[in-house]
Parts: sequence; structure tokens; C-alpha cells
Amino acid sequence: MKINENFLKIQNNYLFSDIAKKVAAYKEANPSADLIRLGIGDVTRPLPEAVTEAMKKAVEEQETVEGFRGYPPEYGYDFLRSAINRNDYAARGVSLSDDEIFVSDGAKSDCGNIGDIFSVDNLVAVCDPLYPVYVDTNVMADRSGVLQNGLWSNFHYMPCTAENGFLPQIPDKKVDIIYLCFPNNPTGMSITKEELAKWVAYANANDSLILYDAAYEAYITSEDVPHSIFEIEGAKSCAIEFKSFSKTAGFTGARCAYTVVPHELKRGGVELNALWGRRQATKFNGVSYITQRGAEAVYSEQGKQQVRANIAYYQNNAKVIADGLRKAGFTVYGGVDSPYIWLRTPDDLTSWEFFDLLLHKVQVVGTPGSGFGPSGEGYFRLTSFGDSEKTREAVARIVSVFSD
Amino acid sequence: MKINENFLKIQNNYLFSDIAKKVAAYKEANPSADLIRLGIGDVTRPLPEAVTEAMKKAVEEQETVEGFRGYPPEYGYDFLRSAINRNDYAARGVSLSDDEIFVSDGAKSDCGNIGDIFSVDNLVAVCDPLYPVYVDTNVMADRSGVLQNGLWSNFHYMPCTAENGFLPQIPDKKVDIIYLCFPNNPTGMSITKEELAKWVAYANANDSLILYDAAYEAYITSEDVPHSIFEIEGAKSCAIEFKSFSKTAGFTGARCAYTVVPHELKRGGVELNALWGRRQATKFNGVSYITQRGAEAVYSEQGKQQVRANIAYYQNNAKVIADGLRKAGFTVYGGVDSPYIWLRTPDDLTSWEFFDLLLHKVQVVGTPGSGFGPSGEGYFRLTSFGDSEKTREAVARIVSVFSD
Repeated sequence: MKINENFLKIQNNYLFSDIAKKVAAYKEANPSADLIRLGIGDVTRPLPEAVTEAMKKAVEEQETVEGFRGYPPEYGYDFLRSAINRNDYAARGVSLSDDEIFVSDGAKSDCGNIGDIFSVDNLVAVCDPLYPVYVDTNVMADRSGVLQNGLWSNFHYMPCTAENGFLPQIPDKKVDIIYLCFPNNPTGMSITKEELAKWVAYANANDSLILYDAAYEAYITSEDVPHSIFEIEGAKSCAIEFKSFSKTAGFTGARCAYTVVPHELKRGGVELNALWGRRQATKFNGVSYITQRGAEAVYSEQGKQQVRANIAYYQNNAKVIADGLRKAGFTVYGGVDSPYIWLRTPDDLTSWEFFDLLLHKVQVVGTPGSGFGPSGEGYFRLTSFGDSEKTREAVARIVSVFSD
Repeated sequence: MKINENFLKIQNNYLFSDIAKKVAAYKEANPSADLIRLGIGDVTRPLPEAVTEAMKKAVEEQETVEGFRGYPPEYGYDFLRSAINRNDYAARGVSLSDDEIFVSDGAKSDCGNIGDIFSVDNLVAVCDPLYPVYVDTNVMADRSGVLQNGLWSNFHYMPCTAENGFLPQIPDKKVDIIYLCFPNNPTGMSITKEELAKWVAYANANDSLILYDAAYEAYITSEDVPHSIFEIEGAKSCAIEFKSFSKTAGFTGARCAYTVVPHELKRGGVELNALWGRRQATKFNGVSYITQRGAEAVYSEQGKQQVRANIAYYQNNAKVIADGLRKAGFTVYGGVDSPYIWLRTPDDLTSWEFFDLLLHKVQVVGTPGSGFGPSGEGYFRLTSFGDSEKTREAVARIVSVFSD
């Protein structure tokens, strides 16, 4: 019996595990240290009351013979698919049918599992830096080649740095599958409709597929930044979109997301909607009824207000971090349409040197930019998902290190 | 951009969708028909109160800043892994460490996704008939070859029929990956420790891997039938086990299962535990906290009693079906250690002829045996998960067709 040898290529290379180990070692050596974590992008505000009330009601239904619901539909309950469609698409002028929306347990699952429906033989284009899941899942699927200086030989990399405004350059050759994430993780930068339209045009001209990760769209404040790639004309024939309730409504612990695969999207004469439907019906069994009722409540009037309040709380943190560090002389990106702050490490420190410095000197945990790819070297990611007081305190601590 | 062409091989071949379409067509033509569904294996009893109380408490925690929990650990919360270990393994004399247990959203997901960690180049052995997910996921992964007379050319099939007591025969050649499901879906038959030990010996001698699906173990009543393959000496070096809260505790709608990958299990010098851990950390983000608290409550004293009562309810249905049909002259298998009844179709009817007859004549929906594989032809599956009154009524109706 033979294992998938591709797994061995990446086995000891997972960014957040590495950080967790360093932090654990520090805590063991300094048990009384007062750490502030602005590293992993996990929310901290409780679930909105509209959501928990809906969940409790759903649990109560599950207690009774009449109300009990067994296997959920593999693609999500109609009530949720239709609420997503009305609120996240129709309300923005995007026309979808409910069966183009697939509810799942998380955007990470979908971003990883979507590769099942593609041939191994595809040229993958990714931004650098990037969310590691895009790369790792393609390494597992044998699309990567070998690792050379932190880059996989078979991928087409698109560096995103201050020099190009953190916007990937459109490839000068034909690529097959393009991962785009806007608002971006980790850089916190967004893309305008005008710029995104160029990608849609490229993909349609080259029969490429765009995998569009819009997990952070709820943080968009700029007028000309699209909340969905389907706001761009022509996107339905070249894009799949991933969205999540995690960052929008605090569902990191409740697990609910959705993926949009338009019927217009065909390759080799086959609808990708049918392929993804087949994949999900075969290897997935739907999302908890209780969770789906909670997700539906995100779109109630009360739910919308409570969700906006949580996002405003995080947006204020983003402003506190960006303003505070900028005032102290840091070069800071992101944080406007995104919960992520991407800063230039001072004094030519490497990302990991800066990580170690903050951990050991002021007990602030962030994420080294180089962990997201070679072009992230010299950058550092902070998230706005923390407690507001602690976020202020973290900024003061970071500033203190460089004001000595 | 190239799709995974393997998907096209199976696209129009999903048993339960076919049944759903036939039933929908019948209902449209006969809107007032009083259908009784003993087809898909979905439970109908409500969640035990111990479970729903724990879920409500967990929802309330998620309402508060202090109690809120974000991303769950990818492999499950320690409280649940440890409860599983104590109750489902230690209590049966099986010694595992908690980190050999991976909590997930469903055994179907795990049975499908486990293929990620195997090379494409493996000879797969499956029973015939079988749970279609084993085959379909391997077709998607390019391990199948082509379909010839209902069988895939690259699989090693092990027919299970009345002639061999529904026990697969140990291959007379070397196979790499062996799917075994006991108590079996669809036949409802179980395997003794003595027989299973032969498989463990074969797998260890041939470096094969057994994928052991024990989703129905809670229904075992026979003394000599193992609840886990790890009750067999030597199994830890050759088996992965899938278990679920779905049929045990009514979690089909709540979504929680677990997979056991022992550290002893190595191939090519690599622990499969590490590979599966890597797969899950990359393509999965853990199970809802609320669901996991519910699953933990299955192991409370109150939870255990309530779960046993639900299972006893279904076991009684199984007895009603088996006894009722046997008395009327049917040849009936299963139903003793399993919620499934596997019956010989009378009058040499094919499985689908019998399906159509029951649907049209007495409005009872079952599952055609041939849908589970060619050796299922001439058999029919009924499940004991229905309401007890309706189950009695269904048996009476079926008997009535053949007593004219």
C-alpha cells in the first residue's frame, strides 16, 4: 500500500503550527507573561444574539419528533441558499439561481476540496504572499513540482509587494487556475472593480479559471471595491467564489461558509457546477441544521445590525493599529477594506526576527510575512480581531520597542 | 483549464438521487399517496435531551465574551477526543492515545477524504454490494479503470451473497487498500472476531490497509461480534476505523463523527496518523463547538441511557420487519446486529422491479439491492429507522402484495 508521497514535501512547514510552538515554548519559559495575540485571524466577539436565538430554537426543534431533521441537503437548506442569494447577491445587483450556491462547513474546506474537480495537469497561478492553503492543497494534489528557494517549480507566482501596490500582475503567458483573494489575506489590500475586470477578461480569453476568495468582503469600506467577483461582467463564465460566515458573523467556531459555482462556468463542455455538486454529494453530507438556522439569522434585520456592530468594532481596531503604528513611523498597509494590517518591518529586520523581537520584548504575537511566501519577507501581519483594549495596549507596546 | 475527467464516468449514477427522482415523479402523479419511506438510512427519533441540553448550554457560552470560542482545534476538542477514547475504546479494553482520534463532520466525509493520503497507484478491494461512496471516491481519484457490466476494471471485487453468508472472501492475491464495513451496509450482516482476525492477518502479511467502517456498531447484539477492529490483535498496524454519532446518537442532522488512525500504522516508514493530521489541518477546520459539546453529552450517564432507548426503538423495528416478512415467506437477512434488513426479492423480480412494485402498489419506498453493486441484484434493503407504527404498517402492506 503506497502513500501519497506529495504529502512528504510539506509535512513540516505549516506556518501557524510553527508560531504556536514558538509561543508555547516562550510561555513555558515565562509562565506569567501577559501575551497579546494578534496573530491567527480568529474573531473574539461573541455570536450575535439573533444568531444564538435562532440556534437555540433549532436545537429545541431537534428535541421533538415533529421538529426533528436528519441528514441535511448536501448543498444546504433552501432557506439558507435563498437568504444568501437575496442578501449577498440580488441586493448587489448580481443575479444567481439558488442552486449555484453550495453551503459548506468552511471556506478552508472548499478552497482545499475544490481541487478534486480539476485535472492534476493544470498550471496554477498564485499570489506571493498568500494564504498557505492554496499552495499546500495543490502540492498534495501533485501540481507543484519541487520546492526551490521557497517557491514550487510548477506554480506561476505573482509577487505582491509595495512596489506594485500589492496587486498581482496579469500573467504574460497562459495559466489555467488562478487563486485571487480580495480583500487580501495577508496584505489587507483590496482590488477595484476596474482592476478585477482585467482579470476576468484575461481568464475568459485564456479559458482560465479564477478561484476568488472573498472571505473578508464584509470589511470593505471603499466604494469602488467589489464585494463579489460576480459584480464584474463576464465573471460567471470564468470564476468560482468562496465566502464565509466566519469573519462576517463570528462563525469561526460554528462552521458555515458557501461557494458559488455559476451554471455558465463550463470547461470541456461540462458545467463545473455539476462537478462540484457531484463532489459534495459524494464526499460531504451537509452542514448542521442548527448552524444553518444560525446563518440564516445573520440576514434578519436584528442579525444585520448586530453583525455590523461587531465588524465596526474590528474596523475600529484596524484603525487604531494602522494609525498608531503610522504615527510612530511604521510603514503600514491594509486595514481599510480588511481586518488585516500589513506592516514593513523596521530596521531591515526579517519577518521572523521581528516576530521574535515582539514576542520576547513586549509579548505581542503577530504573523511573520515570510510565512505567507518569499515576497512576504520584511513584512508582518497584525489582525484587528482582538479585544479593543488589548489592541491599544499591543500597539503601545510595539511602539515602545522602537522609541527607546 | 482541464477538469478531472474521472468525474464524467460516474456523473449520472447516484443511487439515492435516482430513488428520489422516482419517488418525486410518483408523488407528482399521485399527490395524495401515503408513502412510507424505509429507503435512505436516516434516523427519525429526536436528539436525546442530554445532547440538546448540552448544545443549548454551548450556544449560551457563544453569546458571551468570556465563553466565546472561535476556531475549534482541527482534530477535535480534547474533551471530546478523551470521552470517545474512554467510552468507545478503553471501556472495551482497547488502548489508544487521544491523538489517534480525529473528530470530523461525518464518516462520509472521512471515508471520501481519506483517499487524499494514498497514492493513485493502489489496488483497491471492495465488497459487492457496498456503500457507493467507497467506489465513487476512488473513481474520482483515478483508481478505478473503466466500468464493465457494473464493475470497475481496476478494483478487486469481493461478492457477498447468501452463498457465502455475506462474508467477503480473502483475496488470493495482494491487494493494497481494503474497504470493510461491519455491521454491513447494505446487507445488515456482521463479522465475528474470529473472521475479522483473518483479515487483520492478511493485511499485516501483505502490507495492505483496511479501511474499517463501523458506523453501525451501536446496533451489535451478538457477543462474538467486535465493536471496533482494534479489538483484534494486530489491527493497529493495518487499519483505520471510521465511526459516527449519526446512527448511534441521532446526529445525522448535527454532523459529528470520528476516525481512528493509530500511530503504529506506518507505510513506507511514514505514520499515516501524521498524513491524515496534515490533510485535516490543511483542508478542514474542525467541527462546531456546539456540536462537539452535544457529542460529549452522548457519553454522560443520562446520555447513554437515552441513546440506548433510541437504539432499542430501532432494534425493535428491525425485529418487526424481519419477523413479519419471514413469517410471510420472505427470505430475510440482517437486522440482528444492524438497523438494516436485506431481503431476497420474491418471484425472481429484479431489485428495481421490486422497488417499482412496492412504490406503485403499496407506496412503500425501499432501496434496490442492485444499486449497491451487481451482487446486490435480487436483494432489497429496508431500514429500521422509521416510526414504529409506520414500520408495522409498511410490513403489512408488503406482505399484502404477495398474499393475493
